[in-house]
Amino acid sequence: MSETIVMKFGGTSVADGERIKNAARRIVAAHEKGARVVAVLSAQGKTTDQLVAAANEISDRPDPREMDMLLSTGERISCALAAMAIHDMGQQAISLTGSQAGILTDTSHTKARIVEVRADRIEEALNEDKIVLVAGFQGVSTNRDVTTLGRGGSDTTAVAVAAALKADVCEIYTDVDGVFNADPRIVPNARMLPMVSFEEMLEMSASGAGVLQLRSIEYARNHGVPIHCRSSFHDRTGTLVVSEEQTLEHALVTAVTHATDEARVTVRGVPDRPGVAGEIFTKLAEANINVDMILQNEPEGGEHPAELSFTVPRDDLTGALDTLNAIDEFDAVESNTEIGKVSVIGAGMRSHPGVAAKVFTVLGEQGINLEMISTSPIKISCVIAADRVPDAVKALHEAFDLGVAVEDATGDFRPVAP
Amino acid sequence: MSETIVMKFGGTSVADGERIKNAARRIVAAHEKGARVVAVLSAQGKTTDQLVAAANEISDRPDPREMDMLLSTGERISCALAAMAIHDMGQQAISLTGSQAGILTDTSHTKARIVEVRADRIEEALNEDKIVLVAGFQGVSTNRDVTTLGRGGSDTTAVAVAAALKADVCEIYTDVDGVFNADPRIVPNARMLPMVSFEEMLEMSASGAGVLQLRSIEYARNHGVPIHCRSSFHDRTGTLVVSEEQTLEHALVTAVTHATDEARVTVRGVPDRPGVAGEIFTKLAEANINVDMILQNEPEGGEHPAELSFTVPRDDLTGALDTLNAIDEFDAVESNTEIGKVSVIGAGMRSHPGVAAKVFTVLGEQGINLEMISTSPIKISCVIAADRVPDAVKALHEAFDLGVAVEDATGDFRPVAP
Repeated sequence: MSETIVMKFGGTSVADGERIKNAARRIVAAHEKGARVVAVLSAQGKTTDQLVAAANEISDRPDPREMDMLLSTGERISCALAAMAIHDMGQQAISLTGSQAGILTDTSHTKARIVEVRADRIEEALNEDKIVLVAGFQGVSTNRDVTTLGRGGSDTTAVAVAAALKADVCEIYTDVDGVFNADPRIVPNARMLPMVSFEEMLEMSASGAGVLQLRSIEYARNHGVPIHCRSSFHDRTGTLVVSEEQTLEHALVTAVTHATDEARVTVRGVPDRPGVAGEIFTKLAEANINVDMILQNEPEGGEHPAELSFTVPRDDLTGALDTLNAIDEFDAVESNTEIGKVSVIGAGMRSHPGVAAKVFTVLGEQGINLEMISTSPIKISCVIAADRVPDAVKALHEAFDLGVAVEDATGDFRPVAP
Repeated sequence: MSETIVMKFGGTSVADGERIKNAARRIVAAHEKGARVVAVLSAQGKTTDQLVAAANEISDRPDPREMDMLLSTGERISCALAAMAIHDMGQQAISLTGSQAGILTDTSHTKARIVEVRADRIEEALNEDKIVLVAGFQGVSTNRDVTTLGRGGSDTTAVAVAAALKADVCEIYTDVDGVFNADPRIVPNARMLPMVSFEEMLEMSASGAGVLQLRSIEYARNHGVPIHCRSSFHDRTGTLVVSEEQTLEHALVTAVTHATDEARVTVRGVPDRPGVAGEIFTKLAEANINVDMILQNEPEGGEHPAELSFTVPRDDLTGALDTLNAIDEFDAVESNTEIGKVSVIGAGMRSHPGVAAKVFTVLGEQGINLEMISTSPIKISCVIAADRVPDAVKALHEAFDLGVAVEDATGDFRPVAP
């Protein structure tokens, strides 16, 4: 049987008629090489933002079910237009909505999770030698309603379709060459990674590398779908995201990532009774607020009241403060948006202690104060002042020797600012 | 059981956020009066035109299946936004795509016909006291593809849904007060008709009165759905379109209509052999060209070659000429776009001969030359020079005494220019 490829094109890759034709040419080229091709498309450029603006004009709190009905139209437009372009190139193509493609989700509108992909209709079209275009970011719920998968959900659609079809690869086309070991805008000699493990990619995504949606990486790991993250502007190979066994080397440190879109919340005077922290984070979870790092100062013999700090995405800050103020049991609830997070990630850390110590030393040498620290077996994250993030990233990248080697510097993998 | 109302709002009635809220207020008001309410919405203002432009940017001949996938998004956007607005007014609402609403069509993309309405999901929502918003103009084919019903198809959606629900009335909201017995822009004392029969309305629509889509009237007649054609800007009663038995009076002449969007094609030197006209009109039908009036001059003993004239919508003229030139058997194919059509319609004509004679006399007195004539039991149409259309309409309206009576002139039904 011939190779099966799922290709995913994001909003910038289908932003106008010309780019849709470019994407169509790539899709057709893959098909002409003999592959069975499914392409998952996002909405064009600013379409989703415009639809959100139209909804906000109508209502302060648009109904989530209706928001999904509204937003799901953008990807359908991209797919229909791409199908037209492919027809003009002499190939058969068929566009499918999430529902038609069999993307079955739960009923959590605006952030639904895929529960199953019933890919019969895709298979049927592939067997008729058609190119299949699937509207990303959406599905149909068990209640037969249109659902969407949340920001960046098209990546998850692509991976889920690839898993259902047992595709050979899921290619994610973006406006960058691949995954870099630091942001090339901050570190000019950042290196593109030819290969990275799912686990490392998960930690990188969670700590600021925006190239792939977190959930799509989880899905790919759980279903063993190899991801090829590559540029839509040229044909060069990008970054392969594969299982740890398939990666060639386990670098001590693979990448330095950073995030500046978080905020820190500090709760002073947390009552000293069991279960109070559980109560706080249950309420935050109910309000759908993603808490990242948590830091608690235990009360010392009643002299100091307990203090609790945590970080949230900056967009969730207002919601978090509202939730905490509603509990109304604390001395004070404070927030700080002038924070940033810098992280060092590497599967090799598991077997090499001392990385954390080196991170702290390097940052200390730069005079950078560590406000919060959080670790996993393959990651160390530090919350620092927002304005020191570039210095921290540069220093860590340098200290762990992650820059482009001289022999690579003129090769294909030169960093390109996104 | 409480009253069931289907309300249809066209593109201008949902053109922006403010108008969507206005439509939502009307819908909510009807629901608060105790009715079960289904609203069928068109795409906002110029949305459909913009989507068509996007398709044309991609392809000269966009694939019809993909065109339907593309165009069907516009109505979904309107419905989702209206549902949000209704929620903000404290009522429950649910938007449904054509497919979700059970609008089953044949597979003729871009001009599909409704074969069945499976309204279970609408019924279900109505039984839960929800307002149901149905995306107009679209359905799902027996092949499970998204289809559209052609220009103005939302009227047909509304009537079909009303028929399936056995609704008490299908209200069509437009930017005019109702159906007038002539175009008020030409005849200032044109009268709004409080009631008109399906048959008359069909003839009026076919001969230029643009207020309702032809197919929706046919559907309403076949299923006995009363239509109330009314303004979205005020609460006054408009025009009821009902079965002939329900109309109160059978006026000799009900209305004078006109059309200036047609063109005349003349074929000179048609070969004198049987079946040649059949061949011509078969080829035109295959090219999807709607021929209206046909006039043939029989050849007289071979002295004059036969001549064939017919009218087509002006948009179809290029297609008609291409089709005829491809046959390549004629002396000449000529066209004239400077024509207009004026028609006199009235169910009373059936039993009163002499209307045609009066029409010809009135036009003759105005010095207006009749290029072609076509009649039905309740209609007389004449093709005349385009620049004489206003004179013809005014003279016929006057001659058949259709102006506003003095006692009505200050009433509610004053003509309002659209």
